[in-house]
Amino acid sequence: MSKIDTRAVLIDEGLKALLSHGYEGAGIGPILKSAGVPKGSFYHFFESKEDFASAVLTTYCERNSVVRAQLFGDRSKSPLGRLRAYFEYYENIYGAGDPTCGCLLGNLSQSIAAHSEVLRKELNRSFTAWQEDFKSVLREARDAGELPDHLEPDEAAAFLIDAYEGALIRMKAEGSIKPLQRFRAMALEGLLAGDK
Amino acid sequence: MSKIDTRAVLIDEGLKALLSHGYEGAGIGPILKSAGVPKGSFYHFFESKEDFASAVLTTYCERNSVVRAQLFGDRSKSPLGRLRAYFEYYENIYGAGDPTCGCLLGNLSQSIAAHSEVLRKELNRSFTAWQEDFKSVLREARDAGELPDHLEPDEAAAFLIDAYEGALIRMKAEGSIKPLQRFRAMALEGLLAGDK
Repeated sequence: MSKIDTRAVLIDEGLKALLSHGYEGAGIGPILKSAGVPKGSFYHFFESKEDFASAVLTTYCERNSVVRAQLFGDRSKSPLGRLRAYFEYYENIYGAGDPTCGCLLGNLSQSIAAHSEVLRKELNRSFTAWQEDFKSVLREARDAGELPDHLEPDEAAAFLIDAYEGALIRMKAEGSIKPLQRFRAMALEGLLAGDK
Repeated sequence: MSKIDTRAVLIDEGLKALLSHGYEGAGIGPILKSAGVPKGSFYHFFESKEDFASAVLTTYCERNSVVRAQLFGDRSKSPLGRLRAYFEYYENIYGAGDPTCGCLLGNLSQSIAAHSEVLRKELNRSFTAWQEDFKSVLREARDAGELPDHLEPDEAAAFLIDAYEGALIRMKAEGSIKPLQRFRAMALEGLLAGDK
């Protein structure tokens, strides 16, 4: 493998391990083994486990940012319709895979935010970037008259993300995507659109 | 220490370790050391780490159930007033302590639900018991005319818990209790009461 390929494979295996075991449970040894990469080369790519987790987080956020750009850029739908499409997209992914996996942001916030100020700040920045995209769509929804008058788009964006993270936690405990469907019904149809 | 005291100390130290490090990151060795209990005696009390985590979860849920019984039993407040008091109670606790700690149910759901069907089922039962108490208060709120007509108390109970778990995650990432305040404003004042 080229250096670029090796780094990419390490990040993919790292993502799987972090999602499955959390920061402290994810061992570098097993990740290298799954990636088929010799032990010595890890520190060629990453300074530390913290640095590695940060690189995995960056890749994860970039991928999700691309999905948001695509779905939120679809002008054939109303702003709330785009938000609905966004949650349906991830519901299908979680539904097709293992419902006990989850979101890397929630996972790392839970498992490492208390112990690494570097990663906590990166997680906070990642949540904020996600939230900014939600804000834009919700401001558009307000301007299009899709939101109830009392709802402030910026606060609603933050709340939606928080509530969604909680639904992803509950999905793991229930072992089903029902909490995601409940989230959609309550947050999108209820809070945002249902009671204008 | 008596056997009962030793078990209680182990559970208290286990709770701290699980909240701080998650299931896979919490080592039995360090827990025994903090508890001042010799290594050999762990298996006198618990069959396995899974069994130990289950005992910690039971104690944690019992304690929280007592708080709910007290706060939800306070008939001097309206049903929604009691729910508000409940969230304020925990906001004060999280605000006074370390905002990077969090909820054991969310923590274990994130870190072990995918790997232990025993614990996943217990977590699911624990969430359900919590939700049942919320349901009762919300049904009372509906009967007292405190809820918007379109809101179904049972679904709202589930959604509140999910959204609150998410706010607790975000609290860890932000290192502040602002997400809990946002949750209260959006969920209690907005969804449940603000737009009747």
